[in-house]
Amino acid sequence: MAATQEVPNREAFRQAVVNTLERRLFFIPSFKIYRGVAGLYDYGPPGCAVKSNVLAFWRQHFVLEESMLEVDCPCVTPEVVLKASGHVDKFTDLMVKDEKTGTCYRADHLIKDFCKEKLEKDPNLSEEKAAEMKHVLAVLDDLSTEEMGAKIKGYGITAPDTKNVLSDPYPFNLMFQTSIGPSGVSPGYMRPETAQGIFVNFKDLYYFNGNKLPFAAAQIGQAFRNEISPRQGLLRVREFTLAEIEHFVDPEDKSHPKFSEVEKLEFLMFPREDQVSGKSATKLCIGEAVRKGIVNNETLGFFIGRVYLFLTSLGIDKDRLRFRQHLANEMAHYAADCWDAEIECSYGWIECVGIADRSAFDLRAHTDKSGVPLVAAEKFSEPREVEKLIITPIKKELGLAFKGNQKMIVEALEAMKEEEALEMKANLESKGEVQFRVCTLNKDVTIKKGMVTISKEIKKEHQRVFTPSVIEPSFGIGRIIYCLYEHSFYTRPSKGGDEQLNVFRFPPLVAPIKCTVFPLVQNQQFEEVSRIIAKSLTAVGISYKIDLTGTSIGKRYARTDELGVPLAITVDSTTSVTVRERDSKQQIRVSVDEVASVVKEVSDGISTWADVQWKYPTHSSTVSED
Amino acid sequence: MAATQEVPNREAFRQAVVNTLERRLFFIPSFKIYRGVAGLYDYGPPGCAVKSNVLAFWRQHFVLEESMLEVDCPCVTPEVVLKASGHVDKFTDLMVKDEKTGTCYRADHLIKDFCKEKLEKDPNLSEEKAAEMKHVLAVLDDLSTEEMGAKIKGYGITAPDTKNVLSDPYPFNLMFQTSIGPSGVSPGYMRPETAQGIFVNFKDLYYFNGNKLPFAAAQIGQAFRNEISPRQGLLRVREFTLAEIEHFVDPEDKSHPKFSEVEKLEFLMFPREDQVSGKSATKLCIGEAVRKGIVNNETLGFFIGRVYLFLTSLGIDKDRLRFRQHLANEMAHYAADCWDAEIECSYGWIECVGIADRSAFDLRAHTDKSGVPLVAAEKFSEPREVEKLIITPIKKELGLAFKGNQKMIVEALEAMKEEEALEMKANLESKGEVQFRVCTLNKDVTIKKGMVTISKEIKKEHQRVFTPSVIEPSFGIGRIIYCLYEHSFYTRPSKGGDEQLNVFRFPPLVAPIKCTVFPLVQNQQFEEVSRIIAKSLTAVGISYKIDLTGTSIGKRYARTDELGVPLAITVDSTTSVTVRERDSKQQIRVSVDEVASVVKEVSDGISTWADVQWKYPTHSSTVSED
Repeated sequence: MAATQEVPNREAFRQAVVNTLERRLFFIPSFKIYRGVAGLYDYGPPGCAVKSNVLAFWRQHFVLEESMLEVDCPCVTPEVVLKASGHVDKFTDLMVKDEKTGTCYRADHLIKDFCKEKLEKDPNLSEEKAAEMKHVLAVLDDLSTEEMGAKIKGYGITAPDTKNVLSDPYPFNLMFQTSIGPSGVSPGYMRPETAQGIFVNFKDLYYFNGNKLPFAAAQIGQAFRNEISPRQGLLRVREFTLAEIEHFVDPEDKSHPKFSEVEKLEFLMFPREDQVSGKSATKLCIGEAVRKGIVNNETLGFFIGRVYLFLTSLGIDKDRLRFRQHLANEMAHYAADCWDAEIECSYGWIECVGIADRSAFDLRAHTDKSGVPLVAAEKFSEPREVEKLIITPIKKELGLAFKGNQKMIVEALEAMKEEEALEMKANLESKGEVQFRVCTLNKDVTIKKGMVTISKEIKKEHQRVFTPSVIEPSFGIGRIIYCLYEHSFYTRPSKGGDEQLNVFRFPPLVAPIKCTVFPLVQNQQFEEVSRIIAKSLTAVGISYKIDLTGTSIGKRYARTDELGVPLAITVDSTTSVTVRERDSKQQIRVSVDEVASVVKEVSDGISTWADVQWKYPTHSSTVSED
Repeated sequence: MAATQEVPNREAFRQAVVNTLERRLFFIPSFKIYRGVAGLYDYGPPGCAVKSNVLAFWRQHFVLEESMLEVDCPCVTPEVVLKASGHVDKFTDLMVKDEKTGTCYRADHLIKDFCKEKLEKDPNLSEEKAAEMKHVLAVLDDLSTEEMGAKIKGYGITAPDTKNVLSDPYPFNLMFQTSIGPSGVSPGYMRPETAQGIFVNFKDLYYFNGNKLPFAAAQIGQAFRNEISPRQGLLRVREFTLAEIEHFVDPEDKSHPKFSEVEKLEFLMFPREDQVSGKSATKLCIGEAVRKGIVNNETLGFFIGRVYLFLTSLGIDKDRLRFRQHLANEMAHYAADCWDAEIECSYGWIECVGIADRSAFDLRAHTDKSGVPLVAAEKFSEPREVEKLIITPIKKELGLAFKGNQKMIVEALEAMKEEEALEMKANLESKGEVQFRVCTLNKDVTIKKGMVTISKEIKKEHQRVFTPSVIEPSFGIGRIIYCLYEHSFYTRPSKGGDEQLNVFRFPPLVAPIKCTVFPLVQNQQFEEVSRIIAKSLTAVGISYKIDLTGTSIGKRYARTDELGVPLAITVDSTTSVTVRERDSKQQIRVSVDEVASVVKEVSDGISTWADVQWKYPTHSSTVSED
């Protein structure tokens, strides 16, 4: 869904943002003095503070607000868990190797680059060939190993660095493998997501919640993907922080008691049908989307709404945020519905949050593998009469007829769904025999009357036991933060107009430092007042940076703006000080005693800048910005 | 230093604590439905909240209060970094294998268990033998591979499970190994500590700090140790959260501007001399300890004081907390001084925080390996005349005399320390020649007059360039939390006296949930009020648990006490409610409108229970606890 044409402007904008981020240590390429490792980045001090703020708000907005059960599980995970979840067998990308040097490439990347290059730069490309390549780009994610291999051979694609011949594509598992304990016989992996740690604890968490549904568990933690050849800078990395919610719900009742709190929200949505028919995302009301069945259920809709509120509170531009529904071929076979919160940045539309109704898949998979039933029970207030289908294979008759195949036929008969069984019952009664497909034998057998009895009985039941559905909002914290950087960044001319100054317009909630403190000129009195203010800021828990350098006030403001600090306190007297807001550059006068509490009020979102501006006298700028 | 005799009471106490912790999901053995993995534990919901609170307070107490530069680096670390730090070569434990089954054991554990068993239970043990075994236990950590092997053979120790013969001991590296990228040629490890991520970023962080010393960087994150056979439950685990501070300081000035804020603190200290002479820990004033030179310098002393305040604020009992200085044989050769904060729990005295002056070792190691100088500069306000030692080997003469060995001799001469060089100069002048040890050749050579000139010259310098010293407080968060659980746990009889109830006396700062809300009886009015109160608690950011079950109020209090919830709000009218404090069980009456702010005041530590008790009417207990 990414824009296929890169606008050169976008590249320049991205470069400006990334340069500022790297210069001010929002991030640092990890192990830089050793030339770094592709796909690994550190958060430097301001980046680390932003991340901390985003996670604290996530806890407030989701965990505390919804009384979720937060857990914290290890990254090291034994093989059996990831075998059950399907990651050992299926968490792969297709890879090709330079036959001579052994360098590895992602097969789809090479085909994508080749086709794009041809389409953009080859004037001799026939219309037919161009159409084919466009088609390949569109269906790239769906190509099989063999089809990718054929494309690479067919197009004559070679290794980009050496032009050597490439191997056939083969799957490479993206998990970092390790070994648990000293014996070398217990393989383990660094978890590729945090969700499995929650699923395996379902039984205990359900009990902790008083054996009641629905409830949600949540986890924040590191996840690992050993990417073949990471590209897209900070967006595709080998280690990242995930924040995941697993909301467990009765599959027969996916309503949400608090849905009414979000149902009036309106934002960009991109349903499956609109994507297929070539329309673009449009504004929809989430309440309507659920009522019309565009979004599968209320709980899914509730989380979509909450995610919208979360992202826009952080400062994500609502016009560059859309919720895109997965196409049928994107979605796992078990999923009931799936929506991605995509944010537009210089790389195109980037998936930052996935919100999926995964049905009962995960709990069933771990139930099967571990033998521990991960189920819930609905106790009836009084016993209910339930009509139950009873299938009784008559083993003696089946044994006589089918000998060694008897066991498989018995199992197949018992596994029949209600509809199929009732049809067989009818056919046996009318025709006396029926053809029956046994998948495990890969053939049809003839079932005769007397080989099986099928009936419906009324039973009294005290409870209904079932596997809960899981609705999973999963947040890529690093991606959200990177998009936030792009959405918050702008430049403005310096007062003299001779240079462009960088500003991050972070809301106070996100800002790495809430205010700076600097004496207007270097003298002992002002420095003393600065330290008193600093102390009172610490006392109310507000992070600040104190700048005692003799640099011009304009330069100090510019440094501050580049870190996205919302408020600057300039000490220009011993009784009152000037407080300056980052984006409007407006200034007010506040007494030394009050200034910490004013900054706290604005930082905590209790007052806006407009509120305090109304309360305190405006300062006509004697403090030059240059 | 752990108590050598286990008191049976301790075992029973530990069992009571651990049972409560596990039953109430403070922790869960990881991957329990798959029978778990030794040394891996999850934090369940209350444990996760406690951890979150401890880390938030750590950030407040250290990072914010001292304006530290927090960073966040990946766990996956390329080999070169851990080669430089020494971990690839030296981060090992000695292991032995059951020759038949391949099961691995820690060599020192087997010897320890064997000697303890003999000493405690063998009535025929000769006095001589007993004395020898006591000696072995005392020096166990210092035994070489060969000595351990000899002990195991000598004592006839076999595999505990099978009685099979054991292999010779050999070193096993405790890092989890993996491979970065798909090629398999870039080995990597899961970091065994977070510190290296800070060291490799020194240059950028120093620049970020305005090229000024001292400053501190900090990091919270996961660390990994692939223990051979984890014992001691929650204390020795394979993955854990570390919080580390690296304080960079000029080695010539380790004073600390805020030392005066801690210097009057008095607490249990256990200096090296007292340990060697068999004394026990005594109360010392940290100011005095620094003045007397017991603690190497002010910065180290400052952190010891701050760690004391941190731990006791969390609820660690000050009488079961001591600072133990490392013995000479425990300390790395480069360390200037090292103190462990040890907390006494049922396992004995446990190292929970290490506070070490690591001198310039780490920065030098990465400078050497990477070729990037990790140094600081002190700019002089005006150029200084500095007396410099100049050693000039005369290569021609050395070449004639030593041929192929010339290069090594030149290097050895240049590497002489001032004292050694001046002694050589004097000897050459008086005797004309001198014997000189060249370590790299492993022999003495004769240096004659004319082969080297040694002089002192006066040079003008504008700055002094040096490698900073590192003072490192390193916190094992999981261990601190476990000790906190033990120190907070007590039991008291139920009102009827028929059972013992468990209580955690967590301070509000640490408590996983700040209060519970429950209607006295199940009716719609009271439930409505409960929900209103719940909403106002969320609004002020206070975590709560609402209990609408019809269970007796006493049982609900007991459940609450077992989670260490400090305050319980019982809704027994529609206008005012009863607030009950956990440990005193005292109750006050507060209006519905005010109750959230009262709970917040106490939770945030702005008021104590005594303060609010004085302000609001006492409730004479009509609410039975049973």
